[in-house]
Amino acid sequence: MSTAPAAPTAPIALPPLANDRFLRACLRLPTDATPVWLMRQAGRYLPEYRATRDVAGSFMGLATNPELACEVTMQPLRRYDLDAAILFSDILTVPDAMGLGLSFAAGEGPKFAKVVRDEAAVAALAVPDMDKLRYVFDAVRTIRRELSDANGVGKVPLIGFSGSPWTLACYMVEGGGSDDYRLVKTLMYQRPDLMHRILAVNADAVALYLNTQIEAGAQAAMIFDSWGGVLADGAFQQFSLAYTKRVLSQLKREHDGHRIPHIVFTKGGGLWLDEIADSGCDVVGLDWTMNLCRARQITGDRVALQGNLDPNVLFAQPEQVREQVIQTLDSFGRHTPGCGHIFNLGHGISQFTPPESVSVLVDTVHEHSRTLR
Amino acid sequence: MSTAPAAPTAPIALPPLANDRFLRACLRLPTDATPVWLMRQAGRYLPEYRATRDVAGSFMGLATNPELACEVTMQPLRRYDLDAAILFSDILTVPDAMGLGLSFAAGEGPKFAKVVRDEAAVAALAVPDMDKLRYVFDAVRTIRRELSDANGVGKVPLIGFSGSPWTLACYMVEGGGSDDYRLVKTLMYQRPDLMHRILAVNADAVALYLNTQIEAGAQAAMIFDSWGGVLADGAFQQFSLAYTKRVLSQLKREHDGHRIPHIVFTKGGGLWLDEIADSGCDVVGLDWTMNLCRARQITGDRVALQGNLDPNVLFAQPEQVREQVIQTLDSFGRHTPGCGHIFNLGHGISQFTPPESVSVLVDTVHEHSRTLR
Repeated sequence: MSTAPAAPTAPIALPPLANDRFLRACLRLPTDATPVWLMRQAGRYLPEYRATRDVAGSFMGLATNPELACEVTMQPLRRYDLDAAILFSDILTVPDAMGLGLSFAAGEGPKFAKVVRDEAAVAALAVPDMDKLRYVFDAVRTIRRELSDANGVGKVPLIGFSGSPWTLACYMVEGGGSDDYRLVKTLMYQRPDLMHRILAVNADAVALYLNTQIEAGAQAAMIFDSWGGVLADGAFQQFSLAYTKRVLSQLKREHDGHRIPHIVFTKGGGLWLDEIADSGCDVVGLDWTMNLCRARQITGDRVALQGNLDPNVLFAQPEQVREQVIQTLDSFGRHTPGCGHIFNLGHGISQFTPPESVSVLVDTVHEHSRTLR
Repeated sequence: MSTAPAAPTAPIALPPLANDRFLRACLRLPTDATPVWLMRQAGRYLPEYRATRDVAGSFMGLATNPELACEVTMQPLRRYDLDAAILFSDILTVPDAMGLGLSFAAGEGPKFAKVVRDEAAVAALAVPDMDKLRYVFDAVRTIRRELSDANGVGKVPLIGFSGSPWTLACYMVEGGGSDDYRLVKTLMYQRPDLMHRILAVNADAVALYLNTQIEAGAQAAMIFDSWGGVLADGAFQQFSLAYTKRVLSQLKREHDGHRIPHIVFTKGGGLWLDEIADSGCDVVGLDWTMNLCRARQITGDRVALQGNLDPNVLFAQPEQVREQVIQTLDSFGRHTPGCGHIFNLGHGISQFTPPESVSVLVDTVHEHSRTLR
């Protein structure tokens, strides 16, 4: 724990944007209202998303088509007053580019055709040729164009992202989702040497991938450590956080003279918040189990915080959604110089969410957060 | 956080046992070595368990047959030098007795034939007649007889248990396992009045159930809040912990003149450890995400701690299992007056565990923990 650092004094160059609240909050600069975006905001809860996915034929068909990926990225921005766009893609594109063959069966999670479970499969891993991920960078460029007005001023910033080295490794070893992480943890406990080698390759691949997204136009970079929270204390630091740091240490902090904030989100990582805040990132994403007031005490405002409403709140009535959003904003508390809060859910939005709930959420964030300044 | 309380000074009456390490550790009395038992120690990883279950025909067939339930309870004690027996049963027997119809399809989790999702279903809930759970109390009596020598001295104590009010509610509303808890959380956020009514009935039912287990011979009572950790901060306190406390406040602390320790285990509850330690329980169970040294600092030894090895460690080689067990014991640290540690896994043992790994675990706990006194 540390005391609150002073607000940044050196001028931070931000890109030309009609709405730069998100970037300002990431960098702990004052904002008129709390910015908000939602993990998986371009997703199945929107009928227009489902229609576009049907045109594409499959999730990967959609993700690999830059025009359609741009279309679904823009859809939530047309409906809601969101403060950031996030690239439509998947956290697992990097291992797909490594040749593992990513697919999504209807109604199921991701699956890899090839798995990485033995010495030979580990030895064969390498940082993939970024040309295999060109569809991602093309999507980034297309979205940035779409977000820009005639003078090159963006509507809102665009966030690029990847899965964390550990989260990628979970899927690469398990071959898909898991409820006990038995295979990946067996490899980790039995052959830590092999696990470290997978994670080192993943970290370097993720760093190159995010840097190439930044060069293509991503204005912030987020690392999703979706499965960091399944690790034991000790193992988390060694097998997840150490490699997230390895990514962060290689990431561009500036591009075209503009600061690129780095966000780390570890689902279930609340117990390690202090250590995550020391990873070198600008923003720590939190799930709904963490109290934001306490998170702010722990981090002493040395990072901005992103989160953390339970996505299931969106199944309640509008007045109840409003109340819960206000409670989350209030738990962060009054804004003081050098603090930063980006409102988000604590996990991706559910496909069953009523789209009207998102309007209530977004409008309440903007409206109520003005009273906390 | 609080400073370490003094060791209990008033004499605490313990039942006659050949091995009372477990009860002593629960009550923070000195022990010669750290006691150990494993959640789900009577389970599918043991070939003799699978043989007995085949005789019973099904999981519920096994759980409802006191002789066979006793047999599987005793099986791990024959193989390993465990310091406690735990009743073979399920956390969901109470809602089954409420008439919801519990079953386990082969290879799947629990399922309820009836679900509780509307006003009428909630209104119909009531504390069940304990006669419907007689098979459990008969099993407790049978096991206690089996554990006793000719002089009525038990080999090790017997732990009774139940799911927590919130965890029962999750299954009662969802009808089975869930990966997003959407239905139960929708009810909770939309109709908190109905959720409170379910939880109140569950709490009173669980308290009566555990007290009847204690009267039948259970020498410690454990509440499994397996799904407390899926709740948002704030909701956890209101919908899980408040009702765990309602159970605890009604539980017998003595039976036949002997102290009955109460254990609360909240999977994923590390962030709320300080509050759980104030619930009135004697022991807090921890999953593997919590560092035991830190847990001890947070609780100031005002409760005993139980845990917390990742069950996946048991898939490693014997020398690696040994190392990880030693690391866990060392993270708890040196034993000082008034502290208590019961070694356990951070969750139930996996059905795929090699039985030999459990021998290494148990023997290492006893051997290494002597050096920490």
